[in-house]
Amino acid sequence: MGKKEKATIHDIATKLGITASTVSRALNNHPRISAKTKKLVNEAAKEIDYKPNSFAVALRNGRSKLIGIVVPTVNRNFFSSVVRGIEEFANERDYRVIITQSYDDYEKEKQTVDALIDAQVDGILVSLGKTTSRHQHFKKAIDAGIPLIFFDRVAENLPVGQVVIDDYQASFKMTEHLIKEGYRHIAHFNSPVPVNIFKERYRGYKEALETYGLSVDPRLILHSNLQLEDGRDSARKLLDRKVPFDAIFSASDYSIVGALQELKKHGIRVPEDVGLAGFGNEPFTEFTDPPLSTVDQVSIPMGQAVAKMFFDLLENQGKALPVQQIVLSSEVIFRASTRKFS
Amino acid sequence: MGKKEKATIHDIATKLGITASTVSRALNNHPRISAKTKKLVNEAAKEIDYKPNSFAVALRNGRSKLIGIVVPTVNRNFFSSVVRGIEEFANERDYRVIITQSYDDYEKEKQTVDALIDAQVDGILVSLGKTTSRHQHFKKAIDAGIPLIFFDRVAENLPVGQVVIDDYQASFKMTEHLIKEGYRHIAHFNSPVPVNIFKERYRGYKEALETYGLSVDPRLILHSNLQLEDGRDSARKLLDRKVPFDAIFSASDYSIVGALQELKKHGIRVPEDVGLAGFGNEPFTEFTDPPLSTVDQVSIPMGQAVAKMFFDLLENQGKALPVQQIVLSSEVIFRASTRKFS
Repeated sequence: MGKKEKATIHDIATKLGITASTVSRALNNHPRISAKTKKLVNEAAKEIDYKPNSFAVALRNGRSKLIGIVVPTVNRNFFSSVVRGIEEFANERDYRVIITQSYDDYEKEKQTVDALIDAQVDGILVSLGKTTSRHQHFKKAIDAGIPLIFFDRVAENLPVGQVVIDDYQASFKMTEHLIKEGYRHIAHFNSPVPVNIFKERYRGYKEALETYGLSVDPRLILHSNLQLEDGRDSARKLLDRKVPFDAIFSASDYSIVGALQELKKHGIRVPEDVGLAGFGNEPFTEFTDPPLSTVDQVSIPMGQAVAKMFFDLLENQGKALPVQQIVLSSEVIFRASTRKFS
Repeated sequence: MGKKEKATIHDIATKLGITASTVSRALNNHPRISAKTKKLVNEAAKEIDYKPNSFAVALRNGRSKLIGIVVPTVNRNFFSSVVRGIEEFANERDYRVIITQSYDDYEKEKQTVDALIDAQVDGILVSLGKTTSRHQHFKKAIDAGIPLIFFDRVAENLPVGQVVIDDYQASFKMTEHLIKEGYRHIAHFNSPVPVNIFKERYRGYKEALETYGLSVDPRLILHSNLQLEDGRDSARKLLDRKVPFDAIFSASDYSIVGALQELKKHGIRVPEDVGLAGFGNEPFTEFTDPPLSTVDQVSIPMGQAVAKMFFDLLENQGKALPVQQIVLSSEVIFRASTRKFS
């Protein structure tokens, strides 16, 4: 590896026959170092092309002005919008944001959190991977005194700040909307993964049905990974079961698009025969035919709330602040896919 | 700020009455340091809870094992897929990837490149922002000896590696396809920004028309920012101009969806009255009605090619390698939106 070695303060120290610590203090204009020594050090630094990097400077004063974000994937409008909200807030305060992805893989999540700790970020903002059940890698960050905040997919047992949306309320409202539109046999797509967001979405669906005197039929509840293909599969299974259904409410936009494609293939009309509603407000929900009802997860405000919580922690570092949980209201968007009568 | 100061090698040095440089060498098991001193240093380190961070270790041996990526935004399937390709390749080689966004803003791009240089990443992989015309911030990385590679949107005048797709060829093929389907008055949406990809897409459109003896009508060429709204506007302008057109080929998927919405609003049938084709293969192009013909930009292979080029540079650092340009063939996808006859 022919890479030219980077000059270090040790090289300056050797050159001048003084200690690295003296060099370091001279470069930092320490009052205990004489003007003469400072001059010598600065000249030597110039001569051997020593470049102090602001990262090393940050290490010294304890701030890198970097915020690390961990998301399952940036390839979801929701996550990339939360990042945008965080970034806007952080940039105004002269902080930079670096993003890493866990791809919903526990090992990758662990490695990426380690990398962020090593990179001395001033805070780590996380939305959990689906397969994450242990939290040792986060305890490391907590022990290292790095502010840690969860958003959307949160670790419920760690004593750290959280920003979530009211998934229960959104789910309740969407199911209620379907009932009020005249749908009576409402199927539900959800994930088998025991993450807060999925549990809450199911609870909202269930309690809305019960509130309106409708029964929860387990044959109409299908669990999957909620991707496009899963939506097609689940719709096919529903049709095969021959249990009547006149609406599907999915915990994800991707699977409801899959269902839309599958139903169309069978000549089933949306919204006349079957109403469809998703969750996430991915941009494509506006482009389908018909456009899909969905839940907007107020991603930009969520990002801003997460960033604000981080800067509050930073300003009060060392003080025993109560652990905060912020719950944001989401917005239910009614489009043509659920308009049976209206 | 009540944050407990992190113990440093200077604290160990003070404690033992030796120089920081001796401490550093002892911790790194330097042969010139006696076994006794090493023992003392390691004990002192333990006592005052000194944690060498792998980042500092990396600084010493010149490798952080981090790759920095700069993209305009992660909120495009194309960019997030290229990142995925890079990440898969890098993770296999025990490298981590950190992502930053320029939001097509020159100042942000500059700051984010600076932050990556400060963070001592081992390489910077960049897709240029639309407003970037100066390249001083990249010269800084080159001067610092950090491997720099461009992908997709590249700086043509910098002597660094590039991975691009053959935008010209893809554009030519899509226009040719429209002609062969029987469309004769093919409008074109493009960007006014002088970036390689947009220039090449225009050139492919123009030369396909000429090859088939059709004239290029400037009234059918519309420039915009190519977002959804821009597509609606451009379609409206086309209709207002009353110059006959029977197809639109756009340099972006977003604007062609906008055009689809606008044409439908006017009762114009796609593909019977007007054929539509986009560029980018965003997932939603499959979900529209009709599904849209588009160009797949082979994003995963592009990411892998970029990562491979980076590791080649890393392994041969210091050697004068020729600057590489890799051109990937893209895949033209024909869907219902351009099937006039077939």
